[in-house]
Amino acid sequence: MSYIIYGIPKEYKMNLIERVRTLCPLINPNTSRSITKKQLAYNAIKEEILNNNLPSGTFLVERELCKALDISRTPIREALHQLASEGLVEFIPNRGAFVTGLTYEDIIETYDVREVLEGLATKMFTIHATEPELDELENIYNQMEKALENGNVEELVKYDVKFHRCIIKGCRNDKLKTLIKNINDHVERITNTIKKDQARAITTATHHKNIVNAIIQKDPELAERKMREHIVDSKNYHTKRYNFTK
Amino acid sequence: MSYIIYGIPKEYKMNLIERVRTLCPLINPNTSRSITKKQLAYNAIKEEILNNNLPSGTFLVERELCKALDISRTPIREALHQLASEGLVEFIPNRGAFVTGLTYEDIIETYDVREVLEGLATKMFTIHATEPELDELENIYNQMEKALENGNVEELVKYDVKFHRCIIKGCRNDKLKTLIKNINDHVERITNTIKKDQARAITTATHHKNIVNAIIQKDPELAERKMREHIVDSKNYHTKRYNFTK
Repeated sequence: MSYIIYGIPKEYKMNLIERVRTLCPLINPNTSRSITKKQLAYNAIKEEILNNNLPSGTFLVERELCKALDISRTPIREALHQLASEGLVEFIPNRGAFVTGLTYEDIIETYDVREVLEGLATKMFTIHATEPELDELENIYNQMEKALENGNVEELVKYDVKFHRCIIKGCRNDKLKTLIKNINDHVERITNTIKKDQARAITTATHHKNIVNAIIQKDPELAERKMREHIVDSKNYHTKRYNFTK
Repeated sequence: MSYIIYGIPKEYKMNLIERVRTLCPLINPNTSRSITKKQLAYNAIKEEILNNNLPSGTFLVERELCKALDISRTPIREALHQLASEGLVEFIPNRGAFVTGLTYEDIIETYDVREVLEGLATKMFTIHATEPELDELENIYNQMEKALENGNVEELVKYDVKFHRCIIKGCRNDKLKTLIKNINDHVERITNTIKKDQARAITTATHHKNIVNAIIQKDPELAERKMREHIVDSKNYHTKRYNFTK
């Protein structure tokens, strides 16, 4: 892991505080009473990291987080330790907590694993999906195509996420679901860097069309292969982009 | 999960207490002072579950565990909760803690996931392994063959585990290693049921020979396929065996 930023510029700090403060009331408004302060801090900081608002190498100053979230030091520290156990935050002795770097190798590792896991999920979904499940997937795909026609890339990205979730939800393997959940934070952190790329959105929609067709044709091997090809293509896109922006 | 046993027969209880007591001094004798009581209870109970000495559905009576391990109730409870979070123990309201059932579906789910993960690990190992790593793998394979010649199945099983670990260790993907670690308890629990099957040992050795040959030939796709075939074959063996002993 390399550190890109060793501190937050003053104007950025203010942005962070404002953003986190804005975010707080949004987190599970219906259950906010039962959420612990640690959970609240955890959710808020994680959301900021996954959305790349706190980029790799950002120094997470405890007293700033306390102020922004109006939470005392202990729950903030507990939240940071939980995020560290998930690989999103790293503690450096005598320095403090930093957002971990998202490296070239992270992208390769995450996508290599994602390829085989989601490939398997797609195969199993094709074998076992019921009519309502197939309808749900087709419906999501149609919404995605509509978003593409309207040139609404942010909307399309939302349906992209839903498409993958729908397949995973119906894969009939709880262990597989848990493992995919374990890498999904990293996937989200990577994919959230491309929310406004129109060309990529078109490619994604084409791939999804191939996947959905193979599933409807009830061809598990083809569906698996199409999903794997889609994820390999995403890996190549993200690694190229990483090299370009570095 | 279904429950096969709702209590432990008296003579079995005594066996359990003896076994756990015998096990205690064996756990990290050099570091026993730094091990917490919770960790000690966790290790002891987990070892018994993975080795199938506490079979599916066994009622884990807290006071018996306290007596057997000479540990008070709180750390025992904490250990049971940790095991519950890992899917090895289940709490039933108003009844207590039980060893989770190892179902037919558990075998299928675990081996389907294992197939794609270890397949990928084998492919990556074949691509990246250094000469010393290849030597280590060949050495383990040779020891396994020697154990087979001597008809020592328990020894062979040990080298079987080492063979898989050696490949995983050298796969160059930390996220993949973590995911494999997450399912390994379940794999161990399933494979530990066959420690004395001579015919299965011969099959395993043959499969390993095919895998090691493909790795030495530097053929990543073939190595991956051979590992996947080996794991599918193990899945079929365990599911057949499950139906037979049910």
